[in-house]
Amino acid sequence: MSLLVTGSIGIDTVEAPSGKAAETLGGSSVYFAQAASYFSPVRLVGVVGDDCPPGFLQPLQANPKVDLRGLEVRAGSKTFRWHGRYHEDLNQRDTVDVELNVLAEHGPTIPDSFRDSKYVFLANTHPDLQMELLGQLTGPALVVADTMDLWITTQRDSLNRLLGNIDGLLLNDFEARQLTKTSNIISAGFEIAQMVRRFVVIKKGEHGSLLFVGKRVCPLPSYPTVNVVDPTGAGDSFAGAMMGFIAATQKVDIGTLRMALRYGTVTASFGLESFSLAKLIDSTREDIDARLEEFEELMGL
Amino acid sequence: MSLLVTGSIGIDTVEAPSGKAAETLGGSSVYFAQAASYFSPVRLVGVVGDDCPPGFLQPLQANPKVDLRGLEVRAGSKTFRWHGRYHEDLNQRDTVDVELNVLAEHGPTIPDSFRDSKYVFLANTHPDLQMELLGQLTGPALVVADTMDLWITTQRDSLNRLLGNIDGLLLNDFEARQLTKTSNIISAGFEIAQMVRRFVVIKKGEHGSLLFVGKRVCPLPSYPTVNVVDPTGAGDSFAGAMMGFIAATQKVDIGTLRMALRYGTVTASFGLESFSLAKLIDSTREDIDARLEEFEELMGL
Repeated sequence: MSLLVTGSIGIDTVEAPSGKAAETLGGSSVYFAQAASYFSPVRLVGVVGDDCPPGFLQPLQANPKVDLRGLEVRAGSKTFRWHGRYHEDLNQRDTVDVELNVLAEHGPTIPDSFRDSKYVFLANTHPDLQMELLGQLTGPALVVADTMDLWITTQRDSLNRLLGNIDGLLLNDFEARQLTKTSNIISAGFEIAQMVRRFVVIKKGEHGSLLFVGKRVCPLPSYPTVNVVDPTGAGDSFAGAMMGFIAATQKVDIGTLRMALRYGTVTASFGLESFSLAKLIDSTREDIDARLEEFEELMGL
Repeated sequence: MSLLVTGSIGIDTVEAPSGKAAETLGGSSVYFAQAASYFSPVRLVGVVGDDCPPGFLQPLQANPKVDLRGLEVRAGSKTFRWHGRYHEDLNQRDTVDVELNVLAEHGPTIPDSFRDSKYVFLANTHPDLQMELLGQLTGPALVVADTMDLWITTQRDSLNRLLGNIDGLLLNDFEARQLTKTSNIISAGFEIAQMVRRFVVIKKGEHGSLLFVGKRVCPLPSYPTVNVVDPTGAGDSFAGAMMGFIAATQKVDIGTLRMALRYGTVTASFGLESFSLAKLIDSTREDIDARLEEFEELMGL
């Protein structure tokens, strides 16, 4: 079933204890689309500037499951750039430099051919823009969004409006506590689940995730990854595999959601093992399924 | 099968956002014994001073599964006291005051009737004392110990000697990173597993636990607890239920260990819901089994 993602495309520079990768392909829609493509065709909506180096988007263009008709190359604009530096403890990172560039301009337009998309992921951006993108769709069956601390603290009214119009929300544990002013993460999750139509996923990085549906909370550990090179994009890869699995299954019951989170977890774990998309792209659906099987066996499933 | 615990017995004062409990029963061997008693009879070895208020140990004395012949009331000595204060974020706490008292004196003697114990838990204390206690046993089948940051940084040689003589080690994630100087917690766990004979459990509090056996690591989330009143003793309750289950099962294969950790998790979750031992004591084996069933269902088992 048709899956659409709207989000950033970026030129990332990442420093980590294991090395440095300069000017590599990044951005939420990029990680999402690559991860989702193992499960479902995916339509990408995003904008780059005309400064984008030749071949920069080649990994996406080479993926037959990623439909790039919603990719806009905006003349006279510059591509979003992010430069981050991870600490020895990879849970900590500093933003060395960020240039919003095209992300600070007006948003993308969803092409007519994408407007009938049934499964939709609105990656993190200003909640008003997320609402505007949502308004361009003709009848989505399931809309899930991501958000961030900046919008929680500065755009609360806009964010509340968005929450009332989506089925699911993904956010990290820090953001969940911030959104609810509740320190108990389980209470916070249940509270947020009341703000959206169907479910909430709280991402805890190396500590796994929590799925809240109705009165139930399903905890899931992370896949135990020894070789973590670069955590950039892990949350977006998680979301991509999760939504790809849901779109392929065309169900949103608790069993499907739980499997979707397991797939999100193991798919994202490949992405951790290299800079940018390298290891994620090198992996196959068979690799993902084999890792899922191992993960389930380790958990005693 | 006979299970023995050596550890502290304390007079605890705990302040938390939900209230304050002054001079309540605490200590590692106390939480351990209560939790273990749902699964197996348990022999307790510990020392209090003669200042211990009348009736203070009543909860333990009232438990027919806890054998107190190894409890020493030392004349002229004072009982260990601890006063802690939890932050709004219950993962953070400050020690307001600590009086080691009897814990700073010579250790307890294991009574002759306990020396044949087969399953042994050496709760956290100086590793030389843990070795001395271990030396008083005639032929334990499985010895598991806990430790803390203080011994890792100041008694490394003694700790290494202990590690070479035990089957399993429990420690928290901070301590595991400290012990190995390794930031990746999975790598750290595998490294520590090489230092002991059989297995390592890394406790991550609200984020669950990791079991390392040979080349395998089994992740387990925590039980999602909404009503966390007082986390004191949760690690010891976890250890108690884990060891109680192992002693009752008389197996140490990976399947048994994985079940032992699940029982540790849900048993400890009851302890979180009140100050001191109140909720733990109020619970029955049926309550624990019902919560385990719910926990497994939430995880999709």
